[in-house]
Amino acid sequence: MILTLKSGVKKSDVDALTRKIRELGLTPHLSRGAVKVIIGVIGENEHKYKSVLESFDSVESATPILKPYKLVSREFRKENSVIDARGALIGGTRVAVMAGPCSVDTRDNLFTCARAVKKSGAHFLRGGAFKPRTSPYSFQGHGLAALKILAEARKMTGLPVITEVMDTRQVETVARYVDILQVGARNSQNFDLLKEVGQSKKPVLLKRGMANTIEEWLMSAEYVVSRGNKNVILCERGIRTFENSTRFTLDLNAIPVLKHLTHLPVVVDPSHGVGVRDYIPAMALAAVAAGADGVILEVHPKPTEALSDGPQALLPVMFDDLMQDLRRIAEAVGRSL
Amino acid sequence: MILTLKSGVKKSDVDALTRKIRELGLTPHLSRGAVKVIIGVIGENEHKYKSVLESFDSVESATPILKPYKLVSREFRKENSVIDARGALIGGTRVAVMAGPCSVDTRDNLFTCARAVKKSGAHFLRGGAFKPRTSPYSFQGHGLAALKILAEARKMTGLPVITEVMDTRQVETVARYVDILQVGARNSQNFDLLKEVGQSKKPVLLKRGMANTIEEWLMSAEYVVSRGNKNVILCERGIRTFENSTRFTLDLNAIPVLKHLTHLPVVVDPSHGVGVRDYIPAMALAAVAAGADGVILEVHPKPTEALSDGPQALLPVMFDDLMQDLRRIAEAVGRSL
Amino acid sequence: MILTLKSGVKKSDVDALTRKIRELGLTPHLSRGAVKVIIGVIGENEHKYKSVLESFDSVESATPILKPYKLVSREFRKENSVIDARGALIGGTRVAVMAGPCSVDTRDNLFTCARAVKKSGAHFLRGGAFKPRTSPYSFQGHGLAALKILAEARKMTGLPVITEVMDTRQVETVARYVDILQVGARNSQNFDLLKEVGQSKKPVLLKRGMANTIEEWLMSAEYVVSRGNKNVILCERGIRTFENSTRFTLDLNAIPVLKHLTHLPVVVDPSHGVGVRDYIPAMALAAVAAGADGVILEVHPKPTEALSDGPQALLPVMFDDLMQDLRRIAEAVGRSL
Amino acid sequence: MILTLKSGVKKSDVDALTRKIRELGLTPHLSRGAVKVIIGVIGENEHKYKSVLESFDSVESATPILKPYKLVSREFRKENSVIDARGALIGGTRVAVMAGPCSVDTRDNLFTCARAVKKSGAHFLRGGAFKPRTSPYSFQGHGLAALKILAEARKMTGLPVITEVMDTRQVETVARYVDILQVGARNSQNFDLLKEVGQSKKPVLLKRGMANTIEEWLMSAEYVVSRGNKNVILCERGIRTFENSTRFTLDLNAIPVLKHLTHLPVVVDPSHGVGVRDYIPAMALAAVAAGADGVILEVHPKPTEALSDGPQALLPVMFDDLMQDLRRIAEAVGRSL
Repeated sequence: MILTLKSGVKKSDVDALTRKIRELGLTPHLSRGAVKVIIGVIGENEHKYKSVLESFDSVESATPILKPYKLVSREFRKENSVIDARGALIGGTRVAVMAGPCSVDTRDNLFTCARAVKKSGAHFLRGGAFKPRTSPYSFQGHGLAALKILAEARKMTGLPVITEVMDTRQVETVARYVDILQVGARNSQNFDLLKEVGQSKKPVLLKRGMANTIEEWLMSAEYVVSRGNKNVILCERGIRTFENSTRFTLDLNAIPVLKHLTHLPVVVDPSHGVGVRDYIPAMALAAVAAGADGVILEVHPKPTEALSDGPQALLPVMFDDLMQDLRRIAEAVGRSL
Repeated sequence: MILTLKSGVKKSDVDALTRKIRELGLTPHLSRGAVKVIIGVIGENEHKYKSVLESFDSVESATPILKPYKLVSREFRKENSVIDARGALIGGTRVAVMAGPCSVDTRDNLFTCARAVKKSGAHFLRGGAFKPRTSPYSFQGHGLAALKILAEARKMTGLPVITEVMDTRQVETVARYVDILQVGARNSQNFDLLKEVGQSKKPVLLKRGMANTIEEWLMSAEYVVSRGNKNVILCERGIRTFENSTRFTLDLNAIPVLKHLTHLPVVVDPSHGVGVRDYIPAMALAAVAAGADGVILEVHPKPTEALSDGPQALLPVMFDDLMQDLRRIAEAVGRSL
Repeated sequence: MILTLKSGVKKSDVDALTRKIRELGLTPHLSRGAVKVIIGVIGENEHKYKSVLESFDSVESATPILKPYKLVSREFRKENSVIDARGALIGGTRVAVMAGPCSVDTRDNLFTCARAVKKSGAHFLRGGAFKPRTSPYSFQGHGLAALKILAEARKMTGLPVITEVMDTRQVETVARYVDILQVGARNSQNFDLLKEVGQSKKPVLLKRGMANTIEEWLMSAEYVVSRGNKNVILCERGIRTFENSTRFTLDLNAIPVLKHLTHLPVVVDPSHGVGVRDYIPAMALAAVAAGADGVILEVHPKPTEALSDGPQALLPVMFDDLMQDLRRIAEAVGRSL
Repeated sequence: MILTLKSGVKKSDVDALTRKIRELGLTPHLSRGAVKVIIGVIGENEHKYKSVLESFDSVESATPILKPYKLVSREFRKENSVIDARGALIGGTRVAVMAGPCSVDTRDNLFTCARAVKKSGAHFLRGGAFKPRTSPYSFQGHGLAALKILAEARKMTGLPVITEVMDTRQVETVARYVDILQVGARNSQNFDLLKEVGQSKKPVLLKRGMANTIEEWLMSAEYVVSRGNKNVILCERGIRTFENSTRFTLDLNAIPVLKHLTHLPVVVDPSHGVGVRDYIPAMALAAVAAGADGVILEVHPKPTEALSDGPQALLPVMFDDLMQDLRRIAEAVGRSL
């Protein structure tokens, strides 16, 4: 960590600071420039002490050198992690496609959808049972009943199933029914929930919070992995910006950045990241071209009957077309679908 | 709600849409301009049907006319709500001051701090027991032990106590020890937690999520109020923007906007909204000048020993000076401290 | 335009408003809901009157129905515009590649670079003569000397040349030497400059301002087109967000949105949109997969000698590899390179 | 500057880098941690060499230690700068109030307005002659005719006059008629314009670009000052964020930050920073409470006749009330009005 001291700092302040640094078990390296005094702080766990050292009035800024995350970092593990969810892989050569409705509404709609996406080549079935809705007056999900329908659909199609878990108290039940636990954008820094899914045996798809930097997102992943669950899939789903012609701004820059920083697989959710049906296929293709390990897409046979997010649901026929295009892009970047 | 249809929409599409509108129990009012067809949709709960109507391919956009929140709106209740927390009021003429350390560390430090802020005129004692930390390796709070220390400090000073609750499973315990439940920025859309504190009898201080619009924030408040807990205090604590010389961007615009839209009291947290000790007093003064009903401030007797957020903690002597200045500003806007 | 009036508006206020609407040559359509009074305003040029009508105290909000731009809209012209710059096309089936150094430094470096990108298959040569630099102490470009070097490089390679113009007083000179005038992100709302290049006969590549919505960007394009210059190319180059691991956030969502809204061609600048050499190829591929009509890339034979933006310059060998990959992606989406 | 090298960097790469550092006339200080190699780079003008050193593939990041601006920094000049514009001061004990219409429309309206704001105690008259409008179809300002009306109003009231200059070619003319040249938010990084006003003798009010960091803004100020014009007034006018209930997000945090970093005076424009008449007074008061040296406010006798920005214009009677409140706040923070 590099401490830049305030201009005109007194010797006694510098001494107090170096004393504290030594007390913390770290080694200070003082460097006096023409204008500024700088202290290099050498030792482990520098992030742990950043706040304490910044609390000194003599310190203008503290710049850490090391990354604050460990287990999820590319330094910790050089090879890509490949996650196995009931036999289907995420993070290998094949691009994973997860598809299904935003929320499970009727058994019929879900089954129709499951059969359709299976036929078009999807590898996972998605569907919401517990729904995080901005309004308390909106449909909140069919809960347990939806979990059971999802499990039936898995039986019917053989597709592993992914659904969102919102509350620490739901984790055990949800994990009993599905194959991947999704932590949504609004819970990306719900640390108790992260700890709880960190103790589950099921893989976790961790969406990026709409205002989280990539570093914060990796710290949330570190919460899960440090509790013992190594099977974390990162999911870019759009960040909040000033642009208002799309629901969020899909940050595809995050794909190459994550590939550099972490060994965890990266999937992209263009449905939420764009929010308008007609624009979603283009962004799914872009995600795979940029190196994503998978995409998660909302598909609904009758969007005008959907209980949530109908405007961004692809029709099965659109999804089928998209799968053809995705296959060509996957091959163009040396992967398969 | 106003539906703007896509250019060149067919008659059969318009018919399908108006049929659906009637099926939903709403009344369509068709209006054909030179370029665009528009449908005014009249009826209750328009927000409930926005997504369904936007799902139609013929619809370009749907613009609601009514606010999506009800119970928290100024229309629902004209007079300001005044919240009573163990006898101390928030939302009346007096500007409420909540002060204390970011997290409860040692009993001694807390007691020193509590006595100091009481002496300077604070009305509430704040202190974290459960801490939402970006890193799993950072101090996570002393939990129950901290709650007990807070309760002791209340006994000693008479100051009502506020602390954060992070997990649905903690609500009952935390409510037993403290007087105001704080829901933090990272849990502002943790809807299960909002429902849970909505069933508590204790007032709730609801921080704004760092990427939440004012409307979304009011919807989160509506979650709490619609579960039966009317005692919600809104707390602006900075939003996330591109500016990096401060920790967040304190959005003081939100104060007059909220005063127009809602009857709930509004307090401001300049400590988190700025993040640098020396800049905090200016923003506390600005908040009160803009009409805030209170401020919540981090104070620590020994910031360099603080287990979290030391760089933004005011020293007791700085807090004492600030209280003098706050008093003058409060009086300048016709209030007291 | 839809005017939503404030709750409890008086009849006299409504009358004053409808009188004004009629005075402006527009027709008001009054609609009284249970809670709100709404006035639909029918007539041309509604945007022109938005501000005036919003100035009435009785008006809560004014929502335009029509787009504020005309000449650049897809409604105005259904087919894609194809721009011809000295015989090379932008906006047709072939994906256009523009490559070269950030700024022209030495004649040798530019010629080496020009030959290399030509050999790898680029269609245009880029290079800065006038440089918009954040610091007054940074290299500001070689100006006229650089323009002459660019013209020589064009003669040598046959590649049409693109360079930035920053000041109204430079337009004539720059247009004499190069084939496409670039308006940079920082001048995207320099309206006098837009008017000036609107009177030029040379095509204009208009970068998106780092804080401009897509609608504002199209309005800037409308400035150019409405002055008589139809040959505008839109260039997405990243918007400013809170994410700090990349220089900007490349908004690829903008590609399908623009393809829906406008007939103008869209190119993408991943070099500025990401800012880190190693991440740029992934984003160039993503841009073409999402439907971009071209990419503009910084290439430098010796980045450590570059006078600006070395960290984001591709080496010629990297550019050559990227061109192979771009070709495959272009073919996968039914285009050529 | 601190260079952090990539993990596993080779000795030959480190040697190449240190050789380059010495070639640039700087001194490298190598420091090998357990995980990372760091090079401290000592010498003047580190910012000048940041880009070059970051261009090396072995460098992960370069962190400057010194500020990139000099003449505008608090280190360069400890005392506050006080700007004199035709005898009226900005930056001293008195809080400066600039008021008037967004744009000059009719001579009558301007004169009415000028007399009103003078009577209420304003110190400067504002009014736009050249207007930067998002749409080419909006009113673009009366230009020279408006400058003449402003000069007449100055004669009548004695108030110094401020107006915006948009184009390098206008600077000389505008400077002939008015007392302060305003550079607008959209031209905050129009570097040729900054250089041009830097050669003027008239004080410059430099608005913050809607996506500019405070550091970039100070660099724009440095452009003006380094050309010889020391009389720069910084004006915070709101930054662009995701919040959409106000036109922009007024960043009052910037006031204490700027007071720490620079000696230049800081004024605030709540009219543009909020955009809604009813919310503006609260933010004007907040600005002064936070330490602003002045406010600039839009006032119009007949907002519904204004040719631009009517919705945010205060009526003269509202302005008069606000002046009373501002006076009380100014006194509460030890200043006068």
